[in-house]
Amino acid sequence: MEFEKVKIDERKYVRVSKDELMRVVQDIFISLGVPKEDAYIVADNLVMADMRGIESHGVQRLKRYVDGIKNGAVKIKPNIKIEKEGPVHALVDGDGGLGQVIGHYAMNLAIEKAKKNYFGIVGVKRSNHYGIAGYYALMAVKDNLIGISLTTSRPLVAHTGAMEKFIGTNPISLATPTNCKYPFFLDMATSVVPSGKIEVYRRKGKPVPEGWAISTKTGEIITDPAEILSSGGAILPLGGLGELLGGHKGYGLSVMVDVLGGILTGAAWSRYVGQTQEPNSNVGHFFMAINPEAFMPLDEFKERMSKMIEDLKNAKKHPKFERIWVHGEKGFLTYETRLKKGVPVYKKVFDEINGIAKELGVKPLSP
Amino acid sequence: MEFEKVKIDERKYVRVSKDELMRVVQDIFISLGVPKEDAYIVADNLVMADMRGIESHGVQRLKRYVDGIKNGAVKIKPNIKIEKEGPVHALVDGDGGLGQVIGHYAMNLAIEKAKKNYFGIVGVKRSNHYGIAGYYALMAVKDNLIGISLTTSRPLVAHTGAMEKFIGTNPISLATPTNCKYPFFLDMATSVVPSGKIEVYRRKGKPVPEGWAISTKTGEIITDPAEILSSGGAILPLGGLGELLGGHKGYGLSVMVDVLGGILTGAAWSRYVGQTQEPNSNVGHFFMAINPEAFMPLDEFKERMSKMIEDLKNAKKHPKFERIWVHGEKGFLTYETRLKKGVPVYKKVFDEINGIAKELGVKPLSP
Repeated sequence: MEFEKVKIDERKYVRVSKDELMRVVQDIFISLGVPKEDAYIVADNLVMADMRGIESHGVQRLKRYVDGIKNGAVKIKPNIKIEKEGPVHALVDGDGGLGQVIGHYAMNLAIEKAKKNYFGIVGVKRSNHYGIAGYYALMAVKDNLIGISLTTSRPLVAHTGAMEKFIGTNPISLATPTNCKYPFFLDMATSVVPSGKIEVYRRKGKPVPEGWAISTKTGEIITDPAEILSSGGAILPLGGLGELLGGHKGYGLSVMVDVLGGILTGAAWSRYVGQTQEPNSNVGHFFMAINPEAFMPLDEFKERMSKMIEDLKNAKKHPKFERIWVHGEKGFLTYETRLKKGVPVYKKVFDEINGIAKELGVKPLSP
Repeated sequence: MEFEKVKIDERKYVRVSKDELMRVVQDIFISLGVPKEDAYIVADNLVMADMRGIESHGVQRLKRYVDGIKNGAVKIKPNIKIEKEGPVHALVDGDGGLGQVIGHYAMNLAIEKAKKNYFGIVGVKRSNHYGIAGYYALMAVKDNLIGISLTTSRPLVAHTGAMEKFIGTNPISLATPTNCKYPFFLDMATSVVPSGKIEVYRRKGKPVPEGWAISTKTGEIITDPAEILSSGGAILPLGGLGELLGGHKGYGLSVMVDVLGGILTGAAWSRYVGQTQEPNSNVGHFFMAINPEAFMPLDEFKERMSKMIEDLKNAKKHPKFERIWVHGEKGFLTYETRLKKGVPVYKKVFDEINGIAKELGVKPLSP
């Protein structure tokens, strides 16, 4: 089945093969002095987002990582170290390196602990934006573990009762092994939408749906993506404005992520989190790997997961929806499709990447 | 400051002192053969909900626990046992006892492990409805630990794309110690509202706000609480109908709770969870206790939490809101107020409790 999570207007996009996109992103980071293995991790993270249909977290973000390295805010060879450690836990100091490299290191540590002692719980401080939260949760699934990944992020959301950018879009991701073709894979901002999605609307010159954001001047709902991304607007927490439809719940989930990823780790909580292009952004992460065998045989767990997924998909369908999806399914199908058809790269982004490549003496992207 | 989370129409409620409410609930369970210590736990859980302003989970639920015991669906002397155990984890078989008693036992186990080994992770199967999820998270805070509590629950929610009661309102709770007068305390259903809140509307004969539920016949938004609570309606996940405002996120969070509390523990996941009045409801819970000292000195953690809470409250205020709240604050103030003024018990509920008391030969409630 050919499927893509988002409808692609082929006139505005250039299809690039996964390998070619991986190649150019890796080469760009290598040319900046990033070690080869680390460049691979960053490329894998960004390209995975695009492959799965999460354009907001894909190569459209390349420039800001490059800028962060260029101006010295992001260290290309950080001294990542374990500050505290026990049989099932660790606290990692990322030393201001690339978030993806630090996240990969820390999640691997959690995985190793879970393989030995059933659980791995790793907190991280002094990191940077680490791409999609789900990348790390999925790492655990390769080893038949449940993966959990949380991160603090810049203040872009107005919490319930507030009228300024104050808390983060702080995502929560959980992935589990199954016997289906794809893992169960939840990866969600705790705001109505992540900021990257609003960036996509801005690039396309389209207003966002009502209910995503408010003006920080009047408190009214606004739809202009440029205004929302400026100091004039703020994203709403999941559940929307006020408490009527549960906006205080999205607010609470965002703070929960701050508690575990920011307060507990010694990182900044969202209000104080900086941009990738600024020194000491001090992003914090929280990772967990759980070996299902602590509770039951792996096969039984996977069987139970698969049965639940099948059940969910076979529920009585709402007439306004084409089908019922399970988390991880759309991304999986999009990935399969793009492996064949190539990754759609927005033309402006394609040109931006090739501008960076040219400047760094890297062979540009071929469509 | 005198404050109550919900405005109380004193003509429709009877104020009862906390001690008197505790007394009657305990006596009722004791008269049913529940051991004294266990009766205290159940009473403490139900009355705490009312004291904190969570009427939906307070003594209005007493009857269903009593009925569950009377018809033999809930065991008064269950053989609660640890089925699997390691230094930081355990799997508990609740043997169909009262959910509160099993939850209390399991969370204590997690707390003991966290005190010794920094982390405690306890899964539970074969339990029953355990009252407010937050009760257990708050238990950890008394020992200066972070507490997390999740539970599966009956199918009352239509997941994204579905048009039947299929997944649970599956709550998430997290509580942490602070230096404020109250702990940070998140306790939220992953649906727009918990079912108990719709029961409160039904009892009061008022329509619920638009956006809480749909008809299972047409898929349209409905507001009649009786219809929603019948097979004719289903609650919506946090984020509402469809994906536009993030309904798939509430759906995903509910499944996350099912994964950890139901699939992993060997309990039923929501679709198969029974009522308290039915045998083998097989509710599952997932508890975690985290000692902040795994990552930093306790004082530093509490200081950081308190600073975050202060910051959140001092953000620029939205003109439509009276003030900015932090999770745990409203419940704390309500508790303080009700300690002085008494717990408001809805007249019908007051009469219902006294009906049960009379039948069991227990001294009835005095206002």
